Amino acid sequence: MNTVSSVPVPPMKFNLWGTVDEAKPLGDSTRSMLGTLMGVREDPSATAAKDVPVTAVTLSPVRLGEDDLQAFARIVGEAHVSVDDDQRAPRARGKSSLDLLEWRAGAAHVVSAPDAVLAPGTDAEVLAVLEFCSAEGIAVVPFGGGTSVVGGLTPADTDGERTFRAVVSLDLARFDELTDVDSESGLATLGAGLTGPAAELLLADHGLQIGHYPQSFPYATIGGYAVTRSSGQNSAGYGRFDDMVRELTLVTPAGVMTVGHASPASAAGPDLRELVMGSEGAFGVVTRVRLRVHPVPQVKRYEAFTFPDFATGVAALRAVKQTGTGPTVIRLSDEIESSINLSSGDKAGESTAPPGCMCITMYEGTEAHAASRHTETRELLLSLGATSVGEEPARHWEQGRFNAPVLRDSLLDSGALCETLETCTDWSNVPRLKKAVGEALADTLNSSGTMALIMCHVSHVYAEGCSLYFTVVAAQKGDPVAQWRRAKTAVTRALTENGGTVTHHHAVGADHRPFMAAEIGELGLEVLRAVKNRLDPAGVMNPGTLIGAGA
Amino acid sequence: MNTVSSVPVPPMKFNLWGTVDEAKPLGDSTRSMLGTLMGVREDPSATAAKDVPVTAVTLSPVRLGEDDLQAFARIVGEAHVSVDDDQRAPRARGKSSLDLLEWRAGAAHVVSAPDAVLAPGTDAEVLAVLEFCSAEGIAVVPFGGGTSVVGGLTPADTDGERTFRAVVSLDLARFDELTDVDSESGLATLGAGLTGPAAELLLADHGLQIGHYPQSFPYATIGGYAVTRSSGQNSAGYGRFDDMVRELTLVTPAGVMTVGHASPASAAGPDLRELVMGSEGAFGVVTRVRLRVHPVPQVKRYEAFTFPDFATGVAALRAVKQTGTGPTVIRLSDEIESSINLSSGDKAGESTAPPGCMCITMYEGTEAHAASRHTETRELLLSLGATSVGEEPARHWEQGRFNAPVLRDSLLDSGALCETLETCTDWSNVPRLKKAVGEALADTLNSSGTMALIMCHVSHVYAEGCSLYFTVVAAQKGDPVAQWRRAKTAVTRALTENGGTVTHHHAVGADHRPFMAAEIGELGLEVLRAVKNRLDPAGVMNPGTLIGAGA
Repeated sequence: MNTVSSVPVPPMKFNLWGTVDEAKPLGDSTRSMLGTLMGVREDPSATAAKDVPVTAVTLSPVRLGEDDLQAFARIVGEAHVSVDDDQRAPRARGKSSLDLLEWRAGAAHVVSAPDAVLAPGTDAEVLAVLEFCSAEGIAVVPFGGGTSVVGGLTPADTDGERTFRAVVSLDLARFDELTDVDSESGLATLGAGLTGPAAELLLADHGLQIGHYPQSFPYATIGGYAVTRSSGQNSAGYGRFDDMVRELTLVTPAGVMTVGHASPASAAGPDLRELVMGSEGAFGVVTRVRLRVHPVPQVKRYEAFTFPDFATGVAALRAVKQTGTGPTVIRLSDEIESSINLSSGDKAGESTAPPGCMCITMYEGTEAHAASRHTETRELLLSLGATSVGEEPARHWEQGRFNAPVLRDSLLDSGALCETLETCTDWSNVPRLKKAVGEALADTLNSSGTMALIMCHVSHVYAEGCSLYFTVVAAQKGDPVAQWRRAKTAVTRALTENGGTVTHHHAVGADHRPFMAAEIGELGLEVLRAVKNRLDPAGVMNPGTLIGAGA
Repeated sequence: MNTVSSVPVPPMKFNLWGTVDEAKPLGDSTRSMLGTLMGVREDPSATAAKDVPVTAVTLSPVRLGEDDLQAFARIVGEAHVSVDDDQRAPRARGKSSLDLLEWRAGAAHVVSAPDAVLAPGTDAEVLAVLEFCSAEGIAVVPFGGGTSVVGGLTPADTDGERTFRAVVSLDLARFDELTDVDSESGLATLGAGLTGPAAELLLADHGLQIGHYPQSFPYATIGGYAVTRSSGQNSAGYGRFDDMVRELTLVTPAGVMTVGHASPASAAGPDLRELVMGSEGAFGVVTRVRLRVHPVPQVKRYEAFTFPDFATGVAALRAVKQTGTGPTVIRLSDEIESSINLSSGDKAGESTAPPGCMCITMYEGTEAHAASRHTETRELLLSLGATSVGEEPARHWEQGRFNAPVLRDSLLDSGALCETLETCTDWSNVPRLKKAVGEALADTLNSSGTMALIMCHVSHVYAEGCSLYFTVVAAQKGDPVAQWRRAKTAVTRALTENGGTVTHHHAVGADHRPFMAAEIGELGLEVLRAVKNRLDPAGVMNPGTLIGAGA
């Protein structure tokens, strides 16, 4: 088979978050803080991950024969099939710290990679690929932006008693169109392969925006947002991604479904959208999403505040949400995160922020509407213990809001362990859950004699509760993969035992799958398996993630 | 078996909406209008439905043997089993006009009724009933308030190739507790059998309310709201009922499930709540619902407006919703409904409302919040063509807002046909859909030489569209059941062909079931059947509604 392929290589380097150009060395003050306070020891002889080429890692050999590849070529076209390592490597893993650490394990470690990359261009081609793979026992991992941080892309060739003779990565990049724009109703249909920026660029021509800004925004795709229940930083104003979805096209081995009623709301039975959202490729491939969209806002207003302590800040955020004063963004960092402000990159540790807990607010809309929302919100916050610190910290946050993950690569290079995890709970349970998570992290990461830095913020508020997002930095000790797995297991157990969800917006993947029974119950799992068995009887769709084949 | 039973008799008379005391004769002006304008001919010899006793109708004979009844008595207690006609009749049908007309068919017509009424008191008792019925081939119809207007309660002894030797009505009345109130988070757990008023009364002790006011509010129950995706008149402020549900307990023949994450939001897979909501008893019995609740509002503000025409009014409602000015209630009647104002009962046709389309608004919350919402909304409405007509029409609407269904019985008594139907669509599609529905109704109901009165209002607004609620009054001609079935079929076809959902908040039941394939697709139906087969392998749960057994 000809290896000339027009499959686009994903923009993120296989072993980094982001591109080589984005990679940022740590500033001296950060390195000094890591060494002094946390006992992180740099290995000056180590090669930075940004300088490691694909040729320096070892991928599992391709197990597909020429017959298979020709069959795929007949379906999607020869130009849209690739078995190159340059294509397989960036689709072999997501971007969790465990993923990034695996690439650092050296050339002797074989990284399991998809045997081929396919880039179909139509629903019919996707369906034909799924039918072929179902008949042939080949697993299929749908691929959007590759930003999973929960092992949602790891190719699995077994699932319970099932085995697969190969795994293909099905790239959605060619589903890149904006269609059926209805400005009056505020609706637009977007191809699942469009990244956040690409989608916003197409909508901007119509004076519209989605308003969905997860930290993965530069790379993650519309389809990925939907199947993982992504939540963006403007969720207070525009809702979670699952709130925005009006209709989805799901191509399954059993056929093509369009889910979502003809109308904004319906009482015609269960809502199948909510079965497809969060399905993480286990039922089929989302190729197209119809979304609620909004006019590009006329104005943006900003104001930051500080609270004397986290509890006072949380109570104020609760009042804002329950009263309904309507900011577009509202977030609150705890004392440690407020003082560190990692998001400012090489200024970590040099924060000039006032003491206390930093709260960022932002307001979008027409001039009058944004002003009214801003006034109502600030009056309420001030009455509940906030001190205004002006608009600059809020603007600064907005400018740097996609940067934090890039810093993680440099921290890993420097011998630190760095990861994030997130949950959500009721307002009344916030203190208990935050304490339980903090203790689980400290117990597992401090035990080897180092002190972990544990930061927390609230970035998503609901009438009855809020998210809690934790960032952890610690010195690597021994095998960092084992070290993190221990911490993650302890934390996830703490979540399920203390009224938290195992994930607020990172999804399940392979990493949270062992906790799904605790999350939704055995009968709940059985219901999802019944759905999977109907849509994917051969079990080829993203095996190993979400639910697994079960008994 | 002893027939002394403590099962409470449902408050609504079996053949009426509401109680005998609520029944209201038509005023002279209404009768004159019906006769003059619409050709309705009264039969002065007919007995009003409110005066017809259960002994004057014929129920299907009880097919359960003494062994069965003793088995049920062992599970739920003898006092909670009944085979009395006084108990079977009010649970034999819902309250659609077709249901009410069936009771008027005379003693020679046999009305199929449940063979027994059971009132279990615990999840374990419900489970034991479902297990017994599954083993014995006895169908189960869960019963809350009995307000279905879509045939959701009609006992069916066949479903596809399945037959059942009897049908029992499972009354949820004993699930009547308020538990686990969390005022800080705004959450409370309510028994599925609590009616709207009973639930609000319990919550009021905690200074809380649900804020869900469907027209069925006086009689419908928490469980019924959930399984039919009810929507209330305050939906602009508090959302649809499905927006309020945090967790449900579903007892299925395969076991008990609690669906809903531990947290306000989660990315841990598909949302099983959305599979249980809208399931209409076809998967199991909802016994308990954890809901978002709100402080009882400090103030209510009211203002009514008129618009020169419906299109101008719709555009203004759209602007209100898309800008987010935040009224608690906003509704708009078309020209005909505005001039008739049937909700004022015997004043129908005597409206003193100004010409044009009446728009009702209401604002709840703290004093400052309600005032700000009111100001923003009224300024926007006035800028878009509204004229204020003061607060009185809005207060008047609120006082009479549960009365309209009572009037229907008197209209049926007087020889008129009266029914409602509802749909929902995108803003851009409102004119097309309203026209298509109006034409389908006029074509089928005017064809026999009478003129139907077709009224329409918008009562639920969403970012991308709104509901359309139609009330139809026509003269009965020939067999009124066949007459209405023709009209309903034509309308429902018009809905599916013109971008509407077959039901915005009345649910599917038996009446809309033939249209479910058009609504969600064949593969969508198959997914729901896979879920049903897993949870209800014997197919005993409310057969004939929602999806049916399928191929």
